[in-house]
Amino acid sequence: MSVLLTGAFGHVGTAITDRLGDDDRYEFTYLDRESHPDFDAHVADVADYEAIRPAFDGQDAVVHLAGNPSPGAPWGEILPSNIVGTYNVLEAARDAGAERVVFASTNHVMGEYRIDREPELYDGEPDLEVDHTDPPRPDSYYAVSKLFGEHLGRYYVEGEGTPERFYALRIGWVLDPEEDVPFGPPERRVAAGELERGTEEYRRAVNHWKAHWCSRRDVARLVDHTLQDESVAFDVFYARSASDHSWFDMDHARDVLGFEPVDDAEAHEPPT
Amino acid sequence: MSVLLTGAFGHVGTAITDRLGDDDRYEFTYLDRESHPDFDAHVADVADYEAIRPAFDGQDAVVHLAGNPSPGAPWGEILPSNIVGTYNVLEAARDAGAERVVFASTNHVMGEYRIDREPELYDGEPDLEVDHTDPPRPDSYYAVSKLFGEHLGRYYVEGEGTPERFYALRIGWVLDPEEDVPFGPPERRVAAGELERGTEEYRRAVNHWKAHWCSRRDVARLVDHTLQDESVAFDVFYARSASDHSWFDMDHARDVLGFEPVDDAEAHEPPT
Repeated sequence: MSVLLTGAFGHVGTAITDRLGDDDRYEFTYLDRESHPDFDAHVADVADYEAIRPAFDGQDAVVHLAGNPSPGAPWGEILPSNIVGTYNVLEAARDAGAERVVFASTNHVMGEYRIDREPELYDGEPDLEVDHTDPPRPDSYYAVSKLFGEHLGRYYVEGEGTPERFYALRIGWVLDPEEDVPFGPPERRVAAGELERGTEEYRRAVNHWKAHWCSRRDVARLVDHTLQDESVAFDVFYARSASDHSWFDMDHARDVLGFEPVDDAEAHEPPT
Repeated sequence: MSVLLTGAFGHVGTAITDRLGDDDRYEFTYLDRESHPDFDAHVADVADYEAIRPAFDGQDAVVHLAGNPSPGAPWGEILPSNIVGTYNVLEAARDAGAERVVFASTNHVMGEYRIDREPELYDGEPDLEVDHTDPPRPDSYYAVSKLFGEHLGRYYVEGEGTPERFYALRIGWVLDPEEDVPFGPPERRVAAGELERGTEEYRRAVNHWKAHWCSRRDVARLVDHTLQDESVAFDVFYARSASDHSWFDMDHARDVLGFEPVDDAEAHEPPT
């Protein structure tokens, strides 16, 4: 299977290539705004349709990860990268006849459920669960742009007929390799002097991390499941590792894709 | 209440001004891309933030109707009018401190439910109902852009805090005054020689009209209800007249806003 990765050299892209790059089932093509010392790549911005279009020729699948990943990004950055960019990727996928698109959405599309309940939400195991059928409550322009991408993907599948399959993954916290260890973000704040171990705030930060963590291994495995799936036309899944502190449903990914996380945030206890 | 109408001189805008223009409860300001012989207006395109911003000063409410209304419009027209335009309107409403925004969404956000079932869907009373909680299945870039507007409105209310209230109205067929009579669209096709009375196709076209018709009076009344409401922060409603042939829920508009249509498509029988 020929697979194009857009945003190939970001956190999720490298999580995929680290695990699947040498897998005989896949032949990857890389597209990124920046070049990489170890990989040949189409160096182009997804905001530029003509620049990215050649990378789509002959691809069976597109894993669309490119875009501004920041919930704090202003509209002026979200519009070209995440709205025009996602249109360009879907239009190029259609034009080139790609069969499937896997799209990096975000759990920030449900962010206001969390904000409504903070900080108590992370005192212990939360009495909240959202699944793919609950109404979105986006917390940012970034999150709105990811909902746009989900709906546009559904329109392409059902209205245009190409691609035939679209998988929206509402991904949690995928970190770089150095931080893909328990408590990276809380410990980074400890190191920066912003947070003190042993406090209530530290415990909440750890539980917050447990709720959202998606290990690099698990996100790559979930993408692998979507590339192998033959049942879905359009669907939405949360992407995270196992956690008693999370409020994002994983039953749907298990029922439809047979995906079970192998990493478990609860296996890790914070340093004292 | 000071109310700004964007797209004031379109079908929905004139339906509102025809019925509410002289109502003592409202003081309307008009914004449209084109001037009007009978009304003073801010003549500006919603794609241009600086041009529209002055019209928002001092407004209590914004009824945002401007945008490309065509389900067949290409992306290149939808992007500036409906995506950038709706961002500009919400940002101007926030910047000016408007309390509420009423947004013209569309029942095309559910269009693929219909397309899946055509033409049999309109043989009689359909065994299909969708409400505001069902997953959107947009049938066009136009429909995707309206879902974008719904989500952006929710983000502004919940994330930015201004406006405080946002009403998405998934409006059916609001016609111009000459066609706001039973069977305007089917009869137009008869007059054009595209459709023959008495045929199965004619009957389906009439039932399709019955399913989607929102009389000018009913859309103005529903907007009136949203302007008077004090209960909603964010919500989504279908906008249509009564019909046994429709598949869009109206219970939610009755339960939340106390809205009941006064026009009934079933009161009209097609000419023979």
